[in-house]
Amino acid sequence: METIKKNLTERRSRSMIQITDPRIEGYLMKLQPEDDAQILAMEEKAREMKFPIIDRLVGRFLHLLTRLKQPKLVVELGSGFGYSALWFARALGEGAKVVLTEYAEKNIAYARQMFEEEGLADKAEFRVGNALEIGQEYDNIDILFIDIDKYQYPAALEAMLPRLAQNALVIADNTLWYGRVVEENSNKDSEAVKRFNELMFSRSDFFTTIVPLRDGVLLSYRI
Amino acid sequence: METIKKNLTERRSRSMIQITDPRIEGYLMKLQPEDDAQILAMEEKAREMKFPIIDRLVGRFLHLLTRLKQPKLVVELGSGFGYSALWFARALGEGAKVVLTEYAEKNIAYARQMFEEEGLADKAEFRVGNALEIGQEYDNIDILFIDIDKYQYPAALEAMLPRLAQNALVIADNTLWYGRVVEENSNKDSEAVKRFNELMFSRSDFFTTIVPLRDGVLLSYRI
Ligand SMILES: C[S@@+](CC[C@H](N)C(=O)[O-])C[C@H]1O[C@@H](n2cnc3c(N)ncnc32)[C@H](O)[C@@H]1O
Ligand SMILES: C[S@@+](CC[C@H](N)C(=O)[O-])C[C@H]1O[C@@H](n2cnc3c(N)ncnc32)[C@H](O)[C@@H]1O
Repeated sequence: METIKKNLTERRSRSMIQITDPRIEGYLMKLQPEDDAQILAMEEKAREMKFPIIDRLVGRFLHLLTRLKQPKLVVELGSGFGYSALWFARALGEGAKVVLTEYAEKNIAYARQMFEEEGLADKAEFRVGNALEIGQEYDNIDILFIDIDKYQYPAALEAMLPRLAQNALVIADNTLWYGRVVEENSNKDSEAVKRFNELMFSRSDFFTTIVPLRDGVLLSYRI
Repeated sequence: METIKKNLTERRSRSMIQITDPRIEGYLMKLQPEDDAQILAMEEKAREMKFPIIDRLVGRFLHLLTRLKQPKLVVELGSGFGYSALWFARALGEGAKVVLTEYAEKNIAYARQMFEEEGLADKAEFRVGNALEIGQEYDNIDILFIDIDKYQYPAALEAMLPRLAQNALVIADNTLWYGRVVEENSNKDSEAVKRFNELMFSRSDFFTTIVPLRDGVLLSYRI
C-alpha cells in the first residue's frame, strides 16, 4: 500500500496531462458546497493520508448515475475507507445495498463507522478480503464499480462478467491512468488499463464510453 | 446564425482552457470507432459548416445516460440538424420518442432525412420554431436537453420546469462556456450560463452536477 501511494503521487505529478483546469475545478466546487459531515471528514482524511479516493466531482457523478439507474445491488471492488461507497449509498432506494470490499481491515472499520454516523449502515455490507473472490459471491449485480490495483482490472472483468444483471452498469475509475495510456514507456499498470479498455470496447453486448472526468471514468452499459 | 458561429469560433480559439488533451481525445476516438453512416455524415457536415454540434464523446455519453434512464419522452431545445437527437433516438426503447426543436427549417429537413435513412423517423417529432414555445406543448418530459443560444438558458429553465416528469433528467450543454464562466470580462452569454448554473444548483428538489466533459455538461436529476 505504501508503494502504491508513492507511485500514485509520482504519477500524478509526472503526468503531462492536465485533466481539469484548476479554476474550473474551483468554480465547480463553489457551485456545489458540501455540508455532509462524513463526506467532509473522509475528504480531509484522504488529503492527510494522501489516499487515492475518487474526488467530489466523481463522487457526485456516481451518485447521479446511481439515482438514474436505481439499482438493487451495487458491488465495489476496492473500497478503501468507503468514500465512493458513501456516494453510492446516499443514492440508493428502499431495500438496495452496496457491498464494500477491501484488503485493509482498518479501512473497512472506518467505513463502517462513517456509514453508522450517516445512518446508512443498513444499506451496506462491509467485507474484508480479496475483492475478486468476494465479488463472485454475488449475483445480479446492477452496478459494478472497479477501483482496485490497476493491473488487476482485466482479471476483475473476467471474474465478474458472469455476475452481472441484465442492463448492468460497469463503472471503472482511472481508465486514463493519469494520461499514461497514451505515453510511450508503459508499465504493468498502464498496460493492464489499456487491455481492460480494449476488452470493454470490443464487446458488442456492452455500450461503452469513457468520460474524461478527472482520471477517466469508464461507463459500460450491458445491452 | 452567422454571428453565432463566428462568436463561437472566436471563443473557442480565445479560450484559455484546454478541456481534454488532444492525445487523450485521440485515444478515445480510436477505442470507439464509428461505422454508422448517418453519424459520420453529420460529423462531416458539422466540420464543413463549422456548426457547433455536441461531439462524439458527448454524443456517446448522452446515449449511455438515455439507456440508463429509459425515458418515454425526450425534448431537445435547439436541435440544429439533429446530431444530438440521433444519439438520443438510437438509445430509445419501444414507443419512446425524441422531440426536435429548431428555428432553421432546412436544418430540421436534413435531420428528418437522416432519421429516415437510419430507420428512426418513427421515434422522432420534427418541429420548426421557437424551442421555448414548442417545448411547453409537452408534459411529463423524462429528459430535457438544452442546447439553444446561451442567453436563453435561464428563461428556458423557467418555462420548462413545470413540464418535467417525476425523476426527470435535465441535461444542458456548454455550461462551462469554453471557460468563460471563470473569466473576468463577462458578456450576456457567460452571465446567463452562470445564472443558469446557480439556479440549478440552488434547487434542493434537483441533484445537480457538471461533468467537465468538452465544454461542460450539466446533469440535474429531479428528486
Ligand atoms: C483507489 S483505492 C479505493 C478508493 C475508493 N474506491 C474511494 O474512492 O473511496 C483502492 C483500494 O483497493 C484496495 N485493493 C486493491 N486491490 C484489492 C483486491 N484485490 N482486493 C481487495 N482490496 C483491494 C486497496 O487496499 C485500496 O484501499
Ligand atoms: C448548438 S446548436 C444545436 C446543436 C445540436 N444540439 C447538436 O448537438 O447536434 C443550437 C441550435 O439552436 C437553434 N436555436 C437557438 N435558439 C433557439 C430557439 N429559441 N428556438 C429554436 N431554435 C433555437 C440554433 O438555430 C442552432 O441551430
